[in-house]
Amino acid sequence: MEEPIRYGMVGGGQGAFIGAVHRLAARMDGEFALVAGALSSDPERAKASAAELGLDPARSYGSFADMAKAEAQRPDGIEAVVIVTPNHMHYPAARAFMEAGIHVICDKPLTATLSDARKLAALVRKSGKLFVLTHNYSGYPMVRQARAMVAAGELGPIRLVHAEYAQDWLTEKVEDGGSKQAAWRTDPKQSGGGAIGDIGTHAYNLLRFVSGLALDSLSADLDSFVPGRRVDDNAHILLRFEGGAKGMIWASQVAPGNENALKLRIFGTKGGLEWGQENPNQLWHTPLSEPRRLLTRGGAATGAAAGRVTRVPAGHPEGYLEGFANIYAEAARAIRAARTPGGLPDGDVVFPTVADGVEGVAFVEACLRSSGKNAAWTRLP
Amino acid sequence: MEEPIRYGMVGGGQGAFIGAVHRLAARMDGEFALVAGALSSDPERAKASAAELGLDPARSYGSFADMAKAEAQRPDGIEAVVIVTPNHMHYPAARAFMEAGIHVICDKPLTATLSDARKLAALVRKSGKLFVLTHNYSGYPMVRQARAMVAAGELGPIRLVHAEYAQDWLTEKVEDGGSKQAAWRTDPKQSGGGAIGDIGTHAYNLLRFVSGLALDSLSADLDSFVPGRRVDDNAHILLRFEGGAKGMIWASQVAPGNENALKLRIFGTKGGLEWGQENPNQLWHTPLSEPRRLLTRGGAATGAAAGRVTRVPAGHPEGYLEGFANIYAEAARAIRAARTPGGLPDGDVVFPTVADGVEGVAFVEACLRSSGKNAAWTRLP
Amino acid sequence: MEEPIRYGMVGGGQGAFIGAVHRLAARMDGEFALVAGALSSDPERAKASAAELGLDPARSYGSFADMAKAEAQRPDGIEAVVIVTPNHMHYPAARAFMEAGIHVICDKPLTATLSDARKLAALVRKSGKLFVLTHNYSGYPMVRQARAMVAAGELGPIRLVHAEYAQDWLTEKVEDGGSKQAAWRTDPKQSGGGAIGDIGTHAYNLLRFVSGLALDSLSADLDSFVPGRRVDDNAHILLRFEGGAKGMIWASQVAPGNENALKLRIFGTKGGLEWGQENPNQLWHTPLSEPRRLLTRGGAATGAAAGRVTRVPAGHPEGYLEGFANIYAEAARAIRAARTPGGLPDGDVVFPTVADGVEGVAFVEACLRSSGKNAAWTRLP
Amino acid sequence: MEEPIRYGMVGGGQGAFIGAVHRLAARMDGEFALVAGALSSDPERAKASAAELGLDPARSYGSFADMAKAEAQRPDGIEAVVIVTPNHMHYPAARAFMEAGIHVICDKPLTATLSDARKLAALVRKSGKLFVLTHNYSGYPMVRQARAMVAAGELGPIRLVHAEYAQDWLTEKVEDGGSKQAAWRTDPKQSGGGAIGDIGTHAYNLLRFVSGLALDSLSADLDSFVPGRRVDDNAHILLRFEGGAKGMIWASQVAPGNENALKLRIFGTKGGLEWGQENPNQLWHTPLSEPRRLLTRGGAATGAAAGRVTRVPAGHPEGYLEGFANIYAEAARAIRAARTPGGLPDGDVVFPTVADGVEGVAFVEACLRSSGKNAAWTRLP
Repeated sequence: MEEPIRYGMVGGGQGAFIGAVHRLAARMDGEFALVAGALSSDPERAKASAAELGLDPARSYGSFADMAKAEAQRPDGIEAVVIVTPNHMHYPAARAFMEAGIHVICDKPLTATLSDARKLAALVRKSGKLFVLTHNYSGYPMVRQARAMVAAGELGPIRLVHAEYAQDWLTEKVEDGGSKQAAWRTDPKQSGGGAIGDIGTHAYNLLRFVSGLALDSLSADLDSFVPGRRVDDNAHILLRFEGGAKGMIWASQVAPGNENALKLRIFGTKGGLEWGQENPNQLWHTPLSEPRRLLTRGGAATGAAAGRVTRVPAGHPEGYLEGFANIYAEAARAIRAARTPGGLPDGDVVFPTVADGVEGVAFVEACLRSSGKNAAWTRLP
Repeated sequence: MEEPIRYGMVGGGQGAFIGAVHRLAARMDGEFALVAGALSSDPERAKASAAELGLDPARSYGSFADMAKAEAQRPDGIEAVVIVTPNHMHYPAARAFMEAGIHVICDKPLTATLSDARKLAALVRKSGKLFVLTHNYSGYPMVRQARAMVAAGELGPIRLVHAEYAQDWLTEKVEDGGSKQAAWRTDPKQSGGGAIGDIGTHAYNLLRFVSGLALDSLSADLDSFVPGRRVDDNAHILLRFEGGAKGMIWASQVAPGNENALKLRIFGTKGGLEWGQENPNQLWHTPLSEPRRLLTRGGAATGAAAGRVTRVPAGHPEGYLEGFANIYAEAARAIRAARTPGGLPDGDVVFPTVADGVEGVAFVEACLRSSGKNAAWTRLP
Repeated sequence: MEEPIRYGMVGGGQGAFIGAVHRLAARMDGEFALVAGALSSDPERAKASAAELGLDPARSYGSFADMAKAEAQRPDGIEAVVIVTPNHMHYPAARAFMEAGIHVICDKPLTATLSDARKLAALVRKSGKLFVLTHNYSGYPMVRQARAMVAAGELGPIRLVHAEYAQDWLTEKVEDGGSKQAAWRTDPKQSGGGAIGDIGTHAYNLLRFVSGLALDSLSADLDSFVPGRRVDDNAHILLRFEGGAKGMIWASQVAPGNENALKLRIFGTKGGLEWGQENPNQLWHTPLSEPRRLLTRGGAATGAAAGRVTRVPAGHPEGYLEGFANIYAEAARAIRAARTPGGLPDGDVVFPTVADGVEGVAFVEACLRSSGKNAAWTRLP
Repeated sequence: MEEPIRYGMVGGGQGAFIGAVHRLAARMDGEFALVAGALSSDPERAKASAAELGLDPARSYGSFADMAKAEAQRPDGIEAVVIVTPNHMHYPAARAFMEAGIHVICDKPLTATLSDARKLAALVRKSGKLFVLTHNYSGYPMVRQARAMVAAGELGPIRLVHAEYAQDWLTEKVEDGGSKQAAWRTDPKQSGGGAIGDIGTHAYNLLRFVSGLALDSLSADLDSFVPGRRVDDNAHILLRFEGGAKGMIWASQVAPGNENALKLRIFGTKGGLEWGQENPNQLWHTPLSEPRRLLTRGGAATGAAAGRVTRVPAGHPEGYLEGFANIYAEAARAIRAARTPGGLPDGDVVFPTVADGVEGVAFVEACLRSSGKNAAWTRLP
């Protein structure tokens, strides 16, 4: 077992949610060690958060810019940074570390604007450093299984793909009630979009990851149901793929009875698949004209693509954190390989890239544009 | 217990499916007796079918026209006719019986064309006879429960309504393989539409019945995925309702792993509901910020609207036939009441009417029109 | 279609539950016509009930004895009687009709005492008439499917059989609150046993019907949890079968959250099955080392034994009444065949017989005896 | 954040299963650091395993005895040891570390014999060190929720408790096929019992943990269904609790279609609960005469006892590893507190203790004894 990869974190201080998830995911397989941070834009909070996490005070920075600069000069400086700020800060933070020659692991969506997304992609290409986007749902073993089955042609050519991500936590105007999570997510400047950016991008990424289909165009009908809300809280989207397949996406934060109901269904000429995030260890598979089968993680008929990201035997459920950690495990593999010229052969790591991120922001942008034109059919820019 | 209502049947001879369902539903509560028939357009089949059903040979007719005429003149003639032909024959058959002063119970969709639908509606108004359309899913007790809860405001104002009806039996081109059911349903002349008419109308009717929302406009993207098929076999539809609510409908006959997966979800400001036809005795209800609750037919917290159409206690499942029979039970009530001037006060029977049928055909027509214009937003004609 | 079979009913008047179920089941396929009744031991109630059901007043009898006598002498007398009284009256009523040469269809358990059960069995043998016991759960198509799969060896030799039937309606002492259903069921004289007789016999019958295993001995621990209750309301039973298989039965009427939760699980060397009454159209089948499969009524991989008792296509749920009606359909077949010397070849009808009934009462008796001896291992008498 | 707790591991080398689970659980919250090991009784394997885990070679020991001795003398020696050997080695290993003044975290069951269990309990009392038994299922948040609800009287007095743990991996004689896991578990010397010890103890512990009921006596019917197997592979157990409650346990390793199907059901006078390990984020709760409610981890109506061991929001599933890690989190709390005289006030940590372990082994012993006497009622020794 090699030394853990040294990493720093931007954002994720006290009161944040996703930062703690990233730290836990990074720690799960012992592949990463947190050694530096610019944990908050509020200096007091940054300091307190760093102390709580046991960081060397000298490596608790007041800004990501300072951190990038200082860490790049240390012999024991961080090899990778994890960016978990509100969306609009992803780009400037990622740029600083890319330019300092440090790998970036970044929460989704990639950026708050398409212009930022494209600039970031260009930077990544130029830098030669790794960029890992944590569309964590692609890390679930049975999502990998589904993808492998589609790729192997077990469903035949795909005709239909349905994805949905339903929540209920924004059914009322909680952003006015002191919820920090709700506040920045419903501020278009910080988020770049509401439900469509926060969870619609997950649904879109999942659908693309599993089906492999390329989008031709979309028609989106977005709403802000809660009076006074400044971003969309519900999205209905029709999809047309190259080659003739069709799809639908529903993303909502105002659907009472739904916690994180991300679901995917795919139908081809020879069979169908169905998967849901809240019980992620199962995958329904129906070969046409045969009974439905319930594939399980680690179980009979589940193959190598899922096995690669499986930690415990069938019947012992793995969850959200394990799926998230699988992205980190792939990132670790890539970062270690990148130490050696040549590194990993193509296809030997599977994680969402900056290209997926640009596509996600383009998807958001296309949805907003389509919705603004009465749901007109719109291509990704 | 009064004498059963004498009825005749048009269509439903040997090899048919839905005719047998109607007969069983009519028989379930002992309210109807089948005494006449024009069971097939093929005279031999008509005769053999009548014999099998134990009809008096004198009342087995070679055509619905003969039957309407003859039965109207008998002192013991039929009081009602049940029409279970392919869709394009609904109108001429219904007209014949309406004009003969006989109540009509008719399978859905109302007709194969909107023009026929409107003419039929005019006839019904003029005749003063009853017209019952068997959108049978509105007969399920927990669908009645859902409707009552929405009407009582338990969900608050409705924001979202999603309905879907997925099947897989037309995934391959079975209409070429001798399936009588598939053959007429995929012939646009006989059916007036494919998935959209056969099952999309059920989804639309269910959504309307439960939510009470009025449609403003729709955007439909229809496909015929199976090469050579002459009607749509998949429909993706966005909905906009008066007052601002939004919805989606998915109807498909090419989704492997689905038998008759009709599902409904409704979300308001104060709660959500979820129901599925394949396990119809359950209704999920989530009051906002409370745990999900599983209401059961006959069980705790299920009220009078469901109780009215419930036959056996909670935990003893009722199914498709009982739901279908509930439409007949309501029809029986109305037919008996119609014997007396005055009859039933308004609201004392609940069944789909010719107006619902016209709306259903208008929905099909709007979907076809929208889809033909690249899914343009379209109002019901 | 032949004339319906003329039948009469003993019990089942106003306020009863199971009588109405029998009438509906008898009517479902049009094979039976109710023409006589001794519907209540209370003359007023008997009369009113008969009127409600449209019986000829001349054929509404004050006692089953009068009815047996009178009907046997009519040229259009009943061919079969349906007995739906409290358990302790099954024997005298059945005797009267058997002796009058009339077929008997009788609710379960067979009798309230083993002595009565044996006398009844002897009578049936002597009379040559048909005796059908309505252990209705054996009528469900997917129960038939399970039985056929076991018989065909698809599970290999059976090792384990678990059955349970849980309810919650007697969690409190409702027999004191005016519930007629609860009152007679908790009176040992009328019922012969509590949960063990009312629902335990169903679980036992189901387990025997599907597995085909012969019981060697049992150990039963019965309780009356509700203070003052005179019969058991919970039963825990261990089973040992000939040949070495083992089993468990749990029957309870004091398990909050359970309506009619009858479940069966069977495990052999090559696979397992799981079925539940509340969603009866599904059967889980796991071939060893393969994924679980969800067989559906009417669906792929469901065979002839289920098909024989199936009315509507896959995905359109059938329920309790259809399952019950399947017993009547088999009875009709047998009754019609019995008109002709020779009748049906063996195995061509499938319904629970008086022998199953004797075994059921012996099972109850053995459970009571075992429980009285500290759950000692006990053989069926 | 304080320094991680230094720990060593006995067993868990290459080819083992549960050792890796412990390491991951220990690492999840960053509270523990693995610094020493006696990872295998095979020196080569021990060395290779230590290298793989990045241990200092000087702290990879050839025996647990050496490790206990050496680590006790180091200033930076381990504060706790984790024992993950086959069962029969738990006692000697635990003794060595207890005697060396080192806290012990030990896999279940406590020992292979009751005599060893009792000696170990005496040692623990004498040593004053902490002993944590990893009955990990008690770490699941919704198990904590269930326990809190029972303790708060939400179900009323408990009448019934049912636990089952079903697997299928030993349906065939895999111990002959080279499975190391199967080999020691089916060797009575190493395991002390088959299904009853391996998984029956989990079911028993869970049932006790949640219900708080004290066992009076049990009746156990154990089988070895697979020819030639030297331990039980199926157990049927009746339970009687002090105060009159009753229960059942089923543990099986020969039930095709079951992976790790640990389930618990509890019924009181006022309500019922139902939980299953394979979808552990849900808990069904039925208040008597109300609809069933689905409580979710992190969701509405889930309280502080579950919240204390919850890492991510509702709808993001936690799994087996998180539940396991909760035992480690509680252990960490206790170990840190034990550094200070006084330590934690009672009730401030919740983990299975040596007393629970003794009871578990006594349960196994009582089952074996009961089964040997034809399932005679037997008290825990």
